Amino acid sequence: MPSGVVNKDLQHERSKCTFNLEEFTVWWVGGKEKLAEKRAMETFFRDQPEFHDTVPLAYASHKEKYEEIIRKATVIFTKTRKLLQEQGRYDARNYFETWDFLLGTGLIKEGNPFRLQFDMFIPALVGHANAEQQAKWLERALNWQILGTYAQTELGHGTFLRGLETRATFDERTDELVLHSPTLTAYKWWPGALGHTANYAVVMAQLYSKGKCFGVHPFMVQLRDEDSHLPLPGIDIGEIGDKIGYKGVNNGYLGFDNFRIPRTNMLMKNAQLLRDGTYVKPATSVLTYGTMVFVRVIICKGMAYELSKAATIAVRYSCVRRQSLINSNQPEVQVMDHLTQQDKLLPQVTKAIALKLAADYLWQLYQDTTSEMDSGKLDRLPELHAISCCLKAISTADAARGMEVCRLACGGHGYLSSANFMTFYSVATAASTYEGENTVMLLQTARFLVKSWNQALKGRKLPSTVSYLSDYCGKTSKRMPWSDSLPVIISAFQAVVANKLRLANEHIERRKTAGYTPEEATNMTGLELTTVAELHGRAFVLHSAYEMIEQACQTASVQLAAVLRQLCALTVYGEALQFAGDLLRFTAISESDVVKLQLKYEAILAALRPNAIGVVDAFDYPDYVLGSALGAYDGNVYERLFEEAMKSPLNQEPVNRTFELYLKPLMRSML
Amino acid sequence: MPSGVVNKDLQHERSKCTFNLEEFTVWWVGGKEKLAEKRAMETFFRDQPEFHDTVPLAYASHKEKYEEIIRKATVIFTKTRKLLQEQGRYDARNYFETWDFLLGTGLIKEGNPFRLQFDMFIPALVGHANAEQQAKWLERALNWQILGTYAQTELGHGTFLRGLETRATFDERTDELVLHSPTLTAYKWWPGALGHTANYAVVMAQLYSKGKCFGVHPFMVQLRDEDSHLPLPGIDIGEIGDKIGYKGVNNGYLGFDNFRIPRTNMLMKNAQLLRDGTYVKPATSVLTYGTMVFVRVIICKGMAYELSKAATIAVRYSCVRRQSLINSNQPEVQVMDHLTQQDKLLPQVTKAIALKLAADYLWQLYQDTTSEMDSGKLDRLPELHAISCCLKAISTADAARGMEVCRLACGGHGYLSSANFMTFYSVATAASTYEGENTVMLLQTARFLVKSWNQALKGRKLPSTVSYLSDYCGKTSKRMPWSDSLPVIISAFQAVVANKLRLANEHIERRKTAGYTPEEATNMTGLELTTVAELHGRAFVLHSAYEMIEQACQTASVQLAAVLRQLCALTVYGEALQFAGDLLRFTAISESDVVKLQLKYEAILAALRPNAIGVVDAFDYPDYVLGSALGAYDGNVYERLFEEAMKSPLNQEPVNRTFELYLKPLMRSML
Repeated sequence: MPSGVVNKDLQHERSKCTFNLEEFTVWWVGGKEKLAEKRAMETFFRDQPEFHDTVPLAYASHKEKYEEIIRKATVIFTKTRKLLQEQGRYDARNYFETWDFLLGTGLIKEGNPFRLQFDMFIPALVGHANAEQQAKWLERALNWQILGTYAQTELGHGTFLRGLETRATFDERTDELVLHSPTLTAYKWWPGALGHTANYAVVMAQLYSKGKCFGVHPFMVQLRDEDSHLPLPGIDIGEIGDKIGYKGVNNGYLGFDNFRIPRTNMLMKNAQLLRDGTYVKPATSVLTYGTMVFVRVIICKGMAYELSKAATIAVRYSCVRRQSLINSNQPEVQVMDHLTQQDKLLPQVTKAIALKLAADYLWQLYQDTTSEMDSGKLDRLPELHAISCCLKAISTADAARGMEVCRLACGGHGYLSSANFMTFYSVATAASTYEGENTVMLLQTARFLVKSWNQALKGRKLPSTVSYLSDYCGKTSKRMPWSDSLPVIISAFQAVVANKLRLANEHIERRKTAGYTPEEATNMTGLELTTVAELHGRAFVLHSAYEMIEQACQTASVQLAAVLRQLCALTVYGEALQFAGDLLRFTAISESDVVKLQLKYEAILAALRPNAIGVVDAFDYPDYVLGSALGAYDGNVYERLFEEAMKSPLNQEPVNRTFELYLKPLMRSML
Repeated sequence: MPSGVVNKDLQHERSKCTFNLEEFTVWWVGGKEKLAEKRAMETFFRDQPEFHDTVPLAYASHKEKYEEIIRKATVIFTKTRKLLQEQGRYDARNYFETWDFLLGTGLIKEGNPFRLQFDMFIPALVGHANAEQQAKWLERALNWQILGTYAQTELGHGTFLRGLETRATFDERTDELVLHSPTLTAYKWWPGALGHTANYAVVMAQLYSKGKCFGVHPFMVQLRDEDSHLPLPGIDIGEIGDKIGYKGVNNGYLGFDNFRIPRTNMLMKNAQLLRDGTYVKPATSVLTYGTMVFVRVIICKGMAYELSKAATIAVRYSCVRRQSLINSNQPEVQVMDHLTQQDKLLPQVTKAIALKLAADYLWQLYQDTTSEMDSGKLDRLPELHAISCCLKAISTADAARGMEVCRLACGGHGYLSSANFMTFYSVATAASTYEGENTVMLLQTARFLVKSWNQALKGRKLPSTVSYLSDYCGKTSKRMPWSDSLPVIISAFQAVVANKLRLANEHIERRKTAGYTPEEATNMTGLELTTVAELHGRAFVLHSAYEMIEQACQTASVQLAAVLRQLCALTVYGEALQFAGDLLRFTAISESDVVKLQLKYEAILAALRPNAIGVVDAFDYPDYVLGSALGAYDGNVYERLFEEAMKSPLNQEPVNRTFELYLKPLMRSML
């Protein structure tokens, strides 16, 4: 039904744009070549009719959803693999670029259970299987002869890995390992594709040999018969039921009843279990840090992209929607003209950019140090790990919050599934929990900060991301001078972190002196510690966004540079106002400085307003990736909302059968 | 499967409780009689097997959901009406107590389309139909011979009522009104039950007579044939499609193609349209204020209850769940023992209480003034309306946010539908938009505050809820002295409001001087204005919670009074810390005072910890009203999660048909 003609307000918005969109997009995507590749793939995906639903799966039953997603995922994977193989670009080891970042939820809103094969199963085999084991299983996994997943989380334990209960007990007599779930809470619970899709899994379990526990290790386990797909005897398996989102991912449960696997199914690239039951420790455990940093960089970047999609939808809708008057003698304005609306949406646009740049910056930092690592210098790893923890927590929390701001800014229509915000939100909010629950992540960062602070107190030199702490320790609390230049504001955040860290540290020490154990003292100081970690992360995000944007501005056109600097300033001012209380506590900012900062923030909103559509257009999302009636490029919002409503099965008949069955008898009952 | 034995940790928690739960519940519910009535009804609802699902509707298709809900709603309504009639308590005019507050989403998680009959259709007829019209339609509605809804919102207009496009044009020739939707955006969009359920609606439309528009008025419109339920000719009707929540409410769209109704279908209790097309204005428009205050009090109270349910679930789960160590030589602790967890959950418990008390307080205030109103004194209405606006905005936003905090505090399991948080969240977040979008609400409050401020500047006396402003206007900005007693903190919030209002007012005036129109100047000051309104509302909530709790403590036992005062202190300290920046700007609070306040806040968390389960138990929700595997009274969390998972239709067969159809061919394709 949409006319195809672009909405007039959007046309006008686009004519006002002061910078070259393509220049922005090339920067955002990471180069011309990448952009061309991205667009070619997007067009390929767009043009396959069987990749798209005619009726949204939201109307289907739970079971129908799963079945349709498996059908669709199979077609998408087969066709895409064929295309990439023809182009010599298929790499089964890393499908991230295509599945995660390019498509996102564009083709399957409910999540794709096959992602577990790429994201978890194959990496687990690469990371944990020795050469012999890789020859046996990795090739089959790469060739999709087996479908796998990674089973770690249990009903009773998630983030606290040491608490896992599943046991793998060595039976020396038969040279087998006996997998067993001693309690209900030992059941594996959550792994994607585990329910009815995968037939193999890498299972994490406590290794027991000769009556001794050696901690959690990975085991390769066949779950289902390859021919019949029936669960093997001793395997209790199924799905964990309906969820807020990821409804197609087929998250499963798995219990073992003394299920036996050969000893050689323990993945032995690192630790080993010998024939006689002797346990051989892994040489080093440092390498896992790298994977963790990598995964968290990926999460942060993913959050940035998802948030930028939500912001695109909301900004476009807000330029099409007209509501309320500003001047009573003039027509209703675009809601984007209300300052309150700009204040809701533009910070989400800039937040998405800042988070993406922070992820890029951290990855660059990590790669810069890998050469050092190759020569055995591993001392920067804890630092990078610490920053990646708080970055994961901040990016997932801010993205989820920001998406809800975008949705609510679209009023009632944001509540419709056809607006598609819930798809993005369900993805973002899940990430607050998986790969390390956010509060636990912040406490890990805090532990590193406390350690660093105490090293600084002893006069030791600190690594670069925390070196600023040295400027504040040991001194009396002289307040940092204030100015509203961006570098000064960013340093002010660092001053806040340092001062709050000093206080937290004092409180821990005081509690220890009062007789609490160090762990109790730390728990009692938990609120201060999570706050410090969060602020350290926020300072890092602001710092990296600033650095990366200044770097980009060295080669950018004058017009683009101007916009990029406004985007950066909006983020920095916005965060400063949000944490004005902390700045007042620990820097020389005054009440009148806060008022001035507020006015500067409002001025930047006004300055960015004409380019709002330009920036979100330049994120370069095809309509099907946004999947939103409110956010399409042509802005035919109302036609699309109506068109989507008409797809409801209830609208296919004028009278539902419940009228004769229930409503009519009810209405007649009181005659 | 749950054993029925209460979880040991919960037993222990209950044994620690220091106050009498029944005493709390009697206070919370509003008296012994009310409590007995509530429990009797809850038992009645619990014991009707046909009121409960065996398989959760989450697994059904969209259409199946609707059909099952209509079936269930019919049974529930019929049986309940019979019971209440037998008891002589049935009142079709106001079913709030039963549907909204007692049951909530307990019986129908997806919302009940019949609520529109009670909540909107009947009240609209009572409010707008004259005696003759009431005789004709109200009796039929009360007897459920017709099913109705209230159609106001359109595809293109919601909160801005004046912008509605649907027209009712008087045709003097035939004495009819011609209802017409001139554009797609004029379509009614959102009314509950409109899709396929209702056969009548009160429709709001712009009245035209003799070529002149008289603004928006209500019209009684038959939508569907009473016998066949077919839409009448000229009526285009259906549902608006899938949404985040309220999936059973059957929200609909409605377009008119020159649809004719008799002139006498205009509801004429207030305004009138005479036979010759003469328009007669309503005598007074003040009475609608009362309805609006009432509706917003109801919303605020509803939000309090929903938040208290989410908090109950999260607190119970956090006392059952054990995760991570505090002391490494001791077992894993209840997650409730982590200070960070207490900081997440206990403020939600107290927030729910504070919001409920604020709603009660406002309603008391309103009723105190109705006697004045009866004698023609209407001057307090704008004041109460203003406070109800910001209360609506704060309660809906805080409840939704708080529920997400509760859900995330339950880790991954909070993401499962069987945890049931999403049901409450989808209800709360919808309320941010309906009955006046929250930002618009805050701006309405702000308008009243600015007006009051300018009256105070002229030395006029202000009404009671804003009288504190007089203390700050005209004076130099002398800072309010600080102490951490609750009344002083509450006054400090008022000082913040007054100072921020002064600044906002200055900025408006400065912008007007610079040549902007008053409306433009106001829009440009929108961020400051919404903040002021929010803080005014927060100060009101704190003030009313404090007053109501002190009032309760006069008759409460020593033990209960101690707990109530702790709950109140936690709310006040928590809000003060959250707005510490504002307090630093406008009161004499110092950096060290903030540190002290933080320590006091932490001390109250610790003091409340032993009574956490007691307080949520005392909210007195039956398990089926919470509807959560994580939150049941017996705490058999893991058994219930498993039991709920087993209800999934996918778990009824070991191998899904997609294995033979898609997975097996895929895995064989690379052999």
